[in-house]
Amino acid sequence: MPKKKKIGFVGTGRMGANMARHLKDCGYPITAVYDVNSDAAQSLAKELNCSHSTTLSGVTKASEVIITVVTDDAAMKQIFKGKKDNLLMGAGRRVFINCATVSPKTHIDIEKAAGKARASTLEGCMASSITQAREGTLYLMVAGKIRTFERVKDILENLSSNMRYIGPAGKAAEVKALVNMVMNINTAGLAEGLGLGAALGLDLTLLREVFAETGANSRVLETDGEDMQIRDHECYFSSAHAAKDSGIAAALARKLRLKLPLNDATEAQYQRMISEGLGELDKSGIAELTFKGRHRTRRGRKKAK
Amino acid sequence: MPKKKKIGFVGTGRMGANMARHLKDCGYPITAVYDVNSDAAQSLAKELNCSHSTTLSGVTKASEVIITVVTDDAAMKQIFKGKKDNLLMGAGRRVFINCATVSPKTHIDIEKAAGKARASTLEGCMASSITQAREGTLYLMVAGKIRTFERVKDILENLSSNMRYIGPAGKAAEVKALVNMVMNINTAGLAEGLGLGAALGLDLTLLREVFAETGANSRVLETDGEDMQIRDHECYFSSAHAAKDSGIAAALARKLRLKLPLNDATEAQYQRMISEGLGELDKSGIAELTFKGRHRTRRGRKKAK
Repeated sequence: MPKKKKIGFVGTGRMGANMARHLKDCGYPITAVYDVNSDAAQSLAKELNCSHSTTLSGVTKASEVIITVVTDDAAMKQIFKGKKDNLLMGAGRRVFINCATVSPKTHIDIEKAAGKARASTLEGCMASSITQAREGTLYLMVAGKIRTFERVKDILENLSSNMRYIGPAGKAAEVKALVNMVMNINTAGLAEGLGLGAALGLDLTLLREVFAETGANSRVLETDGEDMQIRDHECYFSSAHAAKDSGIAAALARKLRLKLPLNDATEAQYQRMISEGLGELDKSGIAELTFKGRHRTRRGRKKAK
Repeated sequence: MPKKKKIGFVGTGRMGANMARHLKDCGYPITAVYDVNSDAAQSLAKELNCSHSTTLSGVTKASEVIITVVTDDAAMKQIFKGKKDNLLMGAGRRVFINCATVSPKTHIDIEKAAGKARASTLEGCMASSITQAREGTLYLMVAGKIRTFERVKDILENLSSNMRYIGPAGKAAEVKALVNMVMNINTAGLAEGLGLGAALGLDLTLLREVFAETGANSRVLETDGEDMQIRDHECYFSSAHAAKDSGIAAALARKLRLKLPLNDATEAQYQRMISEGLGELDKSGIAELTFKGRHRTRRGRKKAK
């Protein structure tokens, strides 16, 4: 067996932290972790008995493969192109696996920038959540150079129960944007169905059972239906993230001059959650907007459409 | 075994005709059929070796149980309250099973009108399609008086593989409106996801596989995804019907002062199909609006939002 590569992590939120925990369980040496939230990184470093790096270049220096799980395009730009400190400083021959859901263009830009530093990048788009990260059962969509993919395939296989190589840089992000766009539409639609059902005085447990047996069935009915009913919005995938992902799809559509009215309405709903301070609720929290009497906006206030 | 009741049919479209065929296979005497499209009724009467009634009251006279499968609220009003000829003429002690997807209010009104004629009605809302009608494997949601339900339970059981008693008159129509509302939203959303995927040059078969394995999965992905890709819009559930059902849900929401932006956007899309002459395509035909280059509207024409 070849020696397991030394792995560093950038972004130690719940996804990143759980991926690190799992890879450590699999026997990979976790070298260093970094997060803008220094306390989170410190705490994970202690748990995993690895270094807490206070610089990005420090993670690069300590590792052969660096897995990044950051929040958005701006954060990706910051960690790869920040002026004083970034991951590409001394990055020659390293592989960066970028797991954040960001725009396809960002993945293409970062691949170019890494190439100039003689390093390689790969998209590792995840279509699953925290539990799957901990258990190494992620659904992974990989994009980038095949050669790079082959170099870190063992790591990706350990992280996932289902992996698909999609194509060159940016393509996995496109597919991921589409997955989340459709998922968010289905979620927003389900919240409307259950909200109207509640307003009609229907038994929502019965209603969900009927939905599950008919053309209204969906994965989000399984994952979010009951949560919407009982108002359990503990965050697995935040409404703010949903807004961002629907926005990525909307931007792609605009560029291609496609009209997507359902996605527009969904993005507007999730943006409204952010603007009303509900962005950190789970995506199921959108039901707070569609159930009568749940919504905190005061009566008579003009609402966004 | 009690003697099987004599059954008449009003509305001999594909659903009604297949239900009649199936009940005949089950040994029920089919007495008479009626349709505004007299040729369709004539042809079915010939096939089933029963009477083609040219009056509604003729169907009532010939039958103990009358199953109606008409298009909309106006048609329901026509068959039960038409001035010169209607189903309630001489209807004493008959049971009417009304299977059209119409507004809850219509079911309540018709139940009252039938009561005055000493007849009984039941909602038999169907959440399945033509094949299931033929095979007696419908998903049936029944509402009305329990006593009435018990009188025709054997017939309903023969028509369905899955039956739920929902509550008093109007309640099954409410649930059905919600099922179709959510189904239509999921359909319109899927069409946007596949349309954007096609515009991005992604392999749609791969994309559908990824959708099926992730949070984007839904029943309509199974039933309509491939049809959207290959443009097979043979009609099982027409876009015009979808527009109507989303409209029923919208009307319920308006009455309850609930905002349902996704349903509004979906209804607008299906209304647009009608206004552009695409209403008789299957609901999957909504992809014709969201795939680049498929849409017939000439370039530059101002489109409905």
